[in-house]
Amino acid sequence: MLYEGKAKKLFKTDDSKVLRVEYLDQATALNGARKDSIAGKGSLNNQITSHVFEQFTQMGIQNHFIGKISNHEQLIEALDMIPLEVVVRNVSAGSFSSRLAITEGEPLAFPVLEFYFKEDDLDDPIINEDHIKVLQIATEQEILTIKQEAHKINQALITLFHKINIRLIDFKIEFGKRADGTILLADEITPDTCRLWDEKTNDHLDKDVYRRDLGEIVPVYREVLDRLEKIIH
Amino acid sequence: MLYEGKAKKLFKTDDSKVLRVEYLDQATALNGARKDSIAGKGSLNNQITSHVFEQFTQMGIQNHFIGKISNHEQLIEALDMIPLEVVVRNVSAGSFSSRLAITEGEPLAFPVLEFYFKEDDLDDPIINEDHIKVLQIATEQEILTIKQEAHKINQALITLFHKINIRLIDFKIEFGKRADGTILLADEITPDTCRLWDEKTNDHLDKDVYRRDLGEIVPVYREVLDRLEKIIH
Ligand SMILES: Nc1ncnc2c1ncn2[C@@H]1O[C@H](COP(=O)(O)OP(=O)(O)OP(=O)(O)O)[C@@H](O)[C@H]1O
Ligand SMILES: Nc1ncnc2c1ncn2[C@@H]1O[C@H](COP(=O)(O)OP(=O)(O)OP(=O)(O)O)[C@@H](O)[C@H]1O
Ligand SMILES: [Mg+2]
Ligand SMILES: [Mg+2]
Repeated sequence: MLYEGKAKKLFKTDDSKVLRVEYLDQATALNGARKDSIAGKGSLNNQITSHVFEQFTQMGIQNHFIGKISNHEQLIEALDMIPLEVVVRNVSAGSFSSRLAITEGEPLAFPVLEFYFKEDDLDDPIINEDHIKVLQIATEQEILTIKQEAHKINQALITLFHKINIRLIDFKIEFGKRADGTILLADEITPDTCRLWDEKTNDHLDKDVYRRDLGEIVPVYREVLDRLEKIIH
Repeated sequence: MLYEGKAKKLFKTDDSKVLRVEYLDQATALNGARKDSIAGKGSLNNQITSHVFEQFTQMGIQNHFIGKISNHEQLIEALDMIPLEVVVRNVSAGSFSSRLAITEGEPLAFPVLEFYFKEDDLDDPIINEDHIKVLQIATEQEILTIKQEAHKINQALITLFHKINIRLIDFKIEFGKRADGTILLADEITPDTCRLWDEKTNDHLDKDVYRRDLGEIVPVYREVLDRLEKIIH
């Protein structure tokens, strides 16, 4: 094993350029302070993110996904991860709403991009582009690439989720770098990392169900997977 | 009286385009939670900021300063204030050091600019340029102007303080808008709003003396004023 995160374990494979990811039956909140075991969650997330990344590959959005090898495992390209959480917001929610006093559910005039420094010890502080450069997390050109990709991914996700009657409120993505410097989408896109609201009922179809104690998350994540599988052939 | 802030009172004058500012003998920290009366501070700050803004006017850096009318009062151009605290940092210190785990005193590779949303109720959260635009605090063009002015002001202040053997660590400025849309430097530049370290001893010649309980601030602020007056004719 290479690394155990909060949602998945990474393993080396025979090929140094390929990692095996095991999605865990585990949910955390408050930067890991709250932690629960939730049977079935890992497999649902592995299937959901696999579908999303396969769609992206078809659309020409470069990413680390190689292939799903079991319900809870997938192979990915090993990348040098950029320690940023890149957040795109279409509608005000969560910390954005509370930090800036904008009512949850208020649509934003344009997609708002935020960078958080992925550093557990610092509690993932929000940072700006000067911080990214002075901390040597990424160069100006790399930041530009990341922003362009993030906006492209946002448009692709809005379209994808709209097809299954889901409104994409916001999401968090991570990028990694190949040895040759190419930057591409990595990590995962799941109900753990997106806010997804049912277009008709405004029901939360995401991790807020866990964070806010709104009920069971497995049926909700399964609903997202089922809807995705209805439109993916 | 128009407005009572934490450091000064604003009064209307006969001319609707001119305000009278009274600098108060008061120091606050922790967003006003700590508050002390400090005799002599208001007058020192009024004199210091008057010298700095006069220098700026001579150098062609547009600002709101009209003239000092007494030791603790000045006249300024009435502006529509932009609710941003614009911070420029040359050396890591204070909240920057603690948020990003960069040792206080570490020089930064380039001047780092930060925006804080000036909103007491929200505790002045740090924000990025997307936030500024989506909150309609300023337009893209206005943000550009503010950044350019802030960097110019930084260079001018580094030079000015270096002449009196003071290292400019960081500072906070505010901008206001004329009816015609012109953006110019407003508020104050004093040891309340700058971190100033003696070049030889690294002694704090600023409000950190109060924030960190390092001693009396009046002699320290007076030292800054005395040094300024030695080089200003
Ligand atoms: N293609 C990739 N190559 C290398 N590492 C990756 C790749 N994709 C994702 N990762 C990393 O896998 C790790 C495990 O993911 P997981 O979501 O479980 O961790 P986490 O809880 O988000 O964060 P932390 O790393 O702080 O525990 C993360 O550090 C993530 O950045
Ligand atoms: N040229 C100007 N025209 C109008 N207002 C100004 C001008 N320059 C500064 N101000 C405003 O004067 C007010 C009083 O300043 P002071 O520093 O005492 O307030 P503060 O404690 O910083 O903040 P707060 O406004 O939250 O009390 C501030 O709101 C500041 O933005
Ligand atoms: Mg993760
Ligand atoms: Mg002030």
